Amino acid sequence: MTALFGHVGAPDAAAADAARARQARLTKPAGSLGRLEDLSVWVASCQGVCPPRRLQRARVVVFAADHGVAAAGVSAYPPDVTAQMVANIDAGGAAINVLAEVAGATVRVLDVGVDVQTPHSPAIGAHKVRRGSGNIAVEDALSEAELDAAIATGRRIADEEVDSGADLLIAGDMGIGNTTAATTLVAALADCEPVAVVGRGTGVDDAGWARKTAAIRDALFRCRGTTDPVTLLRKAGGADLAAMAGFCAQAAVRRTPLLLDGLVVTAAALAAERMAPGARLWWQAGHRSTEPAHAVALDRLGLDPILDLQMRLGEGTGAALALPVVHAAVATLESMATFEEAGVTTDTVP
Amino acid sequence: MTALFGHVGAPDAAAADAARARQARLTKPAGSLGRLEDLSVWVASCQGVCPPRRLQRARVVVFAADHGVAAAGVSAYPPDVTAQMVANIDAGGAAINVLAEVAGATVRVLDVGVDVQTPHSPAIGAHKVRRGSGNIAVEDALSEAELDAAIATGRRIADEEVDSGADLLIAGDMGIGNTTAATTLVAALADCEPVAVVGRGTGVDDAGWARKTAAIRDALFRCRGTTDPVTLLRKAGGADLAAMAGFCAQAAVRRTPLLLDGLVVTAAALAAERMAPGARLWWQAGHRSTEPAHAVALDRLGLDPILDLQMRLGEGTGAALALPVVHAAVATLESMATFEEAGVTTDTVP
Repeated sequence: MTALFGHVGAPDAAAADAARARQARLTKPAGSLGRLEDLSVWVASCQGVCPPRRLQRARVVVFAADHGVAAAGVSAYPPDVTAQMVANIDAGGAAINVLAEVAGATVRVLDVGVDVQTPHSPAIGAHKVRRGSGNIAVEDALSEAELDAAIATGRRIADEEVDSGADLLIAGDMGIGNTTAATTLVAALADCEPVAVVGRGTGVDDAGWARKTAAIRDALFRCRGTTDPVTLLRKAGGADLAAMAGFCAQAAVRRTPLLLDGLVVTAAALAAERMAPGARLWWQAGHRSTEPAHAVALDRLGLDPILDLQMRLGEGTGAALALPVVHAAVATLESMATFEEAGVTTDTVP
Repeated sequence: MTALFGHVGAPDAAAADAARARQARLTKPAGSLGRLEDLSVWVASCQGVCPPRRLQRARVVVFAADHGVAAAGVSAYPPDVTAQMVANIDAGGAAINVLAEVAGATVRVLDVGVDVQTPHSPAIGAHKVRRGSGNIAVEDALSEAELDAAIATGRRIADEEVDSGADLLIAGDMGIGNTTAATTLVAALADCEPVAVVGRGTGVDDAGWARKTAAIRDALFRCRGTTDPVTLLRKAGGADLAAMAGFCAQAAVRRTPLLLDGLVVTAAALAAERMAPGARLWWQAGHRSTEPAHAVALDRLGLDPILDLQMRLGEGTGAALALPVVHAAVATLESMATFEEAGVTTDTVP
C-alpha cells in the first residue's frame, strides 16, 4: 500500500539557503520578522526558487463523510447535519467559504462518504466511496476495497489540483462523528490513553464525552497490536480520513506546500507521514485547535502551529486563516528592499 | 493636558449583544470560531452596527523620530538608519509596506522628530516637532512646548485620517533608540524593575544591553515620584511616543478601532489610556513581540495579542499582520449563512 506513493523528496536545500541569505539582506534587523522568515524560507524551498513566487492558486478541498460511530451518541449534532453542511459549503455560506475568500483561496467540497443515497451534486459525489462508515466501536470503518478507493481518491484529487495549477493546498473536514475517529487514530498512532486526548468535538456535553471516550476505548481495543497506518485507517478511520491521508501524502509527492488544519486533518496527516515518510516537510500547521489530540498529533509531526485562536470548527478554517500569514511571509521575501537597494546602513554599532 | 481629549465613550453594547446573538445563529458549533467571534463582536461594537461593515480603509501611520539616548550606545544600529528607513518606507520597500499591501491597508510615514535638518519630503516633515530628543539618561526628552506639539500632532493626524474615511487605524514606529525610551515609559508607568523588562531591541549585544539597562535605570531615576503620563512622555519619551499616545487616544475619542503593534506603540498606548481612560476598549493587540516590556504593557492594558510569531521589527508590522484576522472575523459575522438560511438542523442531540 505504501508503494501507492512515489518517493517523497525533500524541499530544495539550495533555495532555502538562498532564502536565508536574502532575508539577511532585507531592510530590517536580522531575525526580526520571526516566524515569517521561517515560513518564507519554507515556501522558497518548496518552490525551489528564491525569491519565491507569490501564491496565486491556493485551494481548499473539504472531504465530507459520515461516521457510523455517531450512532453511539458521541456528537452534539445529529448525522443529518453532514449533508446539510455539504450543501451549505457548496452554496458558499459556511465559515470555510468566507475565510477562504478573505485569504484569496477557493473551495471545493467532496462527498466521499456522506450517508445519503444521492450526493448533493454529481460533481460533489463523483468520488464517493460509500455511505457513512462502520461504527468503529464494534466494527471496521471500511472494507479493504473501500480503503484502497478512499486513499486513491485523495491521491487523485491532489493530482487534479496540482495539475490545474494549485500552488498551495489545504484539506478540510466535514462530518458528524469525525473527531471520534480522528482521536482514535491519533491515540493508536501515538500510543496514548484515550482519556488524555478526547475532546469535546463540536461541543458534546459530559455524558456525550463519556460515551465518546467509551467508543474510542472500544475502537482502540479492536485495533490493539496494530501499528500499520493503512490498517488503522481501515479499522478506525473512515473514507474522509483515508482520502485526506492520500491527499496530504500526494501533495508532498507533487512537491506542493500544504497547510494542515485541526484535529481531523492532522490525524490523517499523521497516518500519511507513516505511509510516505518525509511528507511532513511539505506541510505547516495552520493553527492549534482546542482538541487535546491535535496537540499530540502536531507534536509527533514536529509541527508548530502558526495561529492559536481557540478555534475548533474544522472545514479547513484554521488553515485558511493562517494563509494570509504565509502570503505575508512570501511577500516580504519577494518584495522588500535590500539594504543595498534602499541605501540603508548595514553596519551595526561596534 | 488630559482635557486635550474629549470624553471616551464605550463601544456600543447593543451592537455587541446583536453580534453575539448573530454568531449563535451562524452555521457552526457555538463558540467554535474562538477568538474570531470576539473580534467580530468588537468590530460590531466599535461600528455600532450588526452585522459589521467590511473594513474598507485601514491606515497605518508610522511615526519616526530619533532619540538622544542612542548616543549612549543602546542600539545595534547607528542613528543615521532612522532617516534612511523613512525614505525606504516612503519608497515602499520596508516590511510595513509589504505587510500592509497583503492586508489591504495603506501606509503613511511622518517625521515627527528625526535628527535631520531637512525632512525627507515636505509632506513627511509637515508635523515635525524637533530634531531628535534629549538623552533621557541625563535630560528631559522634550520641552513642555514640544510635548504639547507632539501630542497635538498625533491627535490631529488621527482626526485627519478618520475624517478621510479611515475605518481602522494602526500606529507604527521607526527610530533608533526608541525601545530604550519605550521601556523606560513602561517601567515607570507599570512600576517595574528595569532588568526585568529590558530587551534586545533590534538586536543589541550583551555589552549594549548593559548600556541600555544603565540608561533606563538613570532615566527612571530622573522620573522617580512621577506617575503622570504626560510628564513621563516629556521626561522619558520623545516626539514619536507622545504623538503616538495622542493618536491612540484620539482614535478612541473618534470611535475608531485601532490595532496596537509592539513595544513602542504599546508603551505610548499605556500612557494614552492614563490620559484618556477607556481608550483601550477601542484597541486590540495585534501581536506579542519578543520584548519583555511589551508583555508588561499588554498585561496592564488587559489586552491579549492576536498573533505570537516572535516578531520584533516595529513599523506597525505585527499589527498589519493581524489585520487579515480582523478582516476574517468581520467577514464571518457579515457573510456566513445562518442555520435558518442554510436549512441546517440547529437542535443538538439530547
